[in-house]
Amino acid sequence: MSSVPPTLIHSTLAKQLEAEGAFVYLDLAAEARKKGIDVISFGIGQPDFKPPEEVLTAIKDAIDQGHIGYISSLGLPELRAKVAEYLNEKYNTDVKPEEVAITVGAKSAIFMAINLLTRPGDEVIVPDPGFPAYECTVRFAGGRPVFLCLKEEDEFRMTPERVEECLTKNIKCILVNTPHNPTGSVLKKEDVEGLLEIAKRENLAIISDEIYEDFVYEGKHHSFLSMPEWRDYVIYISGFSKTWALTGLRIGIMVAREEVIKKVGVMAINIYSCPPVPFQYGALKALELGLDWFKDIKEEFKRRRDAACDELNKIPGVKALRMPGTFYLFPNVKDLVSKLGYKSVKDLAKAILFEAGVALLPGTAFPLHGGDGFMRLSYVLPVDKIREGLHRVREWVESK
Amino acid sequence: MSSVPPTLIHSTLAKQLEAEGAFVYLDLAAEARKKGIDVISFGIGQPDFKPPEEVLTAIKDAIDQGHIGYISSLGLPELRAKVAEYLNEKYNTDVKPEEVAITVGAKSAIFMAINLLTRPGDEVIVPDPGFPAYECTVRFAGGRPVFLCLKEEDEFRMTPERVEECLTKNIKCILVNTPHNPTGSVLKKEDVEGLLEIAKRENLAIISDEIYEDFVYEGKHHSFLSMPEWRDYVIYISGFSKTWALTGLRIGIMVAREEVIKKVGVMAINIYSCPPVPFQYGALKALELGLDWFKDIKEEFKRRRDAACDELNKIPGVKALRMPGTFYLFPNVKDLVSKLGYKSVKDLAKAILFEAGVALLPGTAFPLHGGDGFMRLSYVLPVDKIREGLHRVREWVESK
Repeated sequence: MSSVPPTLIHSTLAKQLEAEGAFVYLDLAAEARKKGIDVISFGIGQPDFKPPEEVLTAIKDAIDQGHIGYISSLGLPELRAKVAEYLNEKYNTDVKPEEVAITVGAKSAIFMAINLLTRPGDEVIVPDPGFPAYECTVRFAGGRPVFLCLKEEDEFRMTPERVEECLTKNIKCILVNTPHNPTGSVLKKEDVEGLLEIAKRENLAIISDEIYEDFVYEGKHHSFLSMPEWRDYVIYISGFSKTWALTGLRIGIMVAREEVIKKVGVMAINIYSCPPVPFQYGALKALELGLDWFKDIKEEFKRRRDAACDELNKIPGVKALRMPGTFYLFPNVKDLVSKLGYKSVKDLAKAILFEAGVALLPGTAFPLHGGDGFMRLSYVLPVDKIREGLHRVREWVESK
Repeated sequence: MSSVPPTLIHSTLAKQLEAEGAFVYLDLAAEARKKGIDVISFGIGQPDFKPPEEVLTAIKDAIDQGHIGYISSLGLPELRAKVAEYLNEKYNTDVKPEEVAITVGAKSAIFMAINLLTRPGDEVIVPDPGFPAYECTVRFAGGRPVFLCLKEEDEFRMTPERVEECLTKNIKCILVNTPHNPTGSVLKKEDVEGLLEIAKRENLAIISDEIYEDFVYEGKHHSFLSMPEWRDYVIYISGFSKTWALTGLRIGIMVAREEVIKKVGVMAINIYSCPPVPFQYGALKALELGLDWFKDIKEEFKRRRDAACDELNKIPGVKALRMPGTFYLFPNVKDLVSKLGYKSVKDLAKAILFEAGVALLPGTAFPLHGGDGFMRLSYVLPVDKIREGLHRVREWVESK
């Protein structure tokens, strides 16, 4: 008999799942606040604006109308149809309602897509830096992540050239995230076309996480759904958390060919039964409203991006590219780390938090090597707060 | 290059997940209705009463107050604390808030518990008949389900004696469901004690799905949480779907020792980020209200159970035990199947649906052999409808 309680003998696959490094630093920020430090946080990846009131009203109406029972694991049929119509107009494509799944946030769509496509031993290209769930879900599924290191010289884009360098015979799938968390990069049209060409040549699947699709300030977002051959190669993932500022409601979207969506419906039944129901009525209302209201939000986020970028570049030892998408910047702080003599960007982040009262995430929270020497700044706060926070950092640096 | 599109090359583990057989028959019922048949359905496992208005108001208030952002993957701290307090009073135990996880329905709690505890090659005892997700999630995790056939002579209880008969050296975990879907059985105190003794002796974990805990009409529900040693051996699972008639909101509960819950928090971050937020305020209100309002509901369900049981036993070839829990009965229809010359209980179910206009689920939808010769009747409809539906079946049988 083992002396370890049996509830503590855990699967090695389950052990592959790790907490997001970001949370460690958000916890540290909370700790700093408890110590009385007035923290300005550039840490959290959650919009600070409010969704349109009509969306929230639609949710409350759905509750009043008793829409609180089980529905299909793939979501409300009318919402699936509306998502198809909305995406077809937005990306000039041909998605059918049966090719849409509503999920418990984009996160569960990522979890299911990776677990569906990854057989034990398969390799999956994941961006580094990148969203931490990609890597550990690939490992959970028994696969092996192949890290594609995004380069500052490529403006952090996952270019076809870099993907070619990573190809091995075991690679089954490429995980793409455009616009990209944490760097703010946005794939160009030729990147999207080139990646799909590789997928066709090598018979690879592309899981494309496009959750930040509406946060693009220069040029435009190029969706993999716009490619005529998307159906054979692409699983598109998005949701209502970022554009509609509904992170806590957990309504995501997956688009893939019908056979894939059917299988996802079966996975969903076993993982969570169905996505939360009343919120799907809010999502339906959101798509009916469209994005006119979002233009002002986007302008404001562009002003924030510019303010943050300008202020960062005034800090000695910091170099920030003016990234075209998301609400993140990914400044290079290598000179600052070495100038101040810190062992790592993590130590620098801690010092800035506790000494300057500013929370920035070390690039290595996403999740490995690619972010070493960089920091993630999330500009989901007003311009004056952005300036104040980065002034503090600059003064702190200059005082050292 | 393969000729199969890469998005269709799927993991064998993901293929282990199967749709619930019940849905096939609910789809058939919809088809019968389309054909103009007036179907009385005993098919669905969803309460037909309404939750207390205060619960729904609390959800709408939470939305108005802006509680729509991310929270901890383990749920609202105040809800976790309230769940601990509520269960401690209900089951005279010592659950701490850190030992509670709020999940996306009991389903995701089951998914995470099985994936956490099952290492490839491990065996897990699952009840047969039983909730289909148990079996396929064990397979998804790389484990092997060992089916414990529940016997009519045991009143369908998973007794310690039956478990002893199933033990092999690879068994790591016992999946218990009390009160039990689909049979309506409720474990006795000595069953719970005996199962825990086996767990202690063999160092096995018990995953105890107690989602029907409040639907017990004779005697009382004995929770594994009442056992003083629960912490080392038990993962308790429940939720707000059944007692509070909130199936579509997806708010579940898991209780386990703190180290397990921490790991579940990490799994949850990777699978769905956090449970839907506003609904957790409804759940909090529900526990504050307590179960006084539920007494009338339970009385009504007992009347329904008795009506259904009486009517079933009037049908030639049908023998129904008066099961003490859930809202299901599991009548033995073996004599009827052979008397009418059907190949299987599935064929009988189809004939009753299309010829008598009554939807009953074949026991083999749950999910294998144990339910052969049985049917599941769900009594979530008014007594007069129950009588009308079962009269129809009786007349149909007598006319053959």
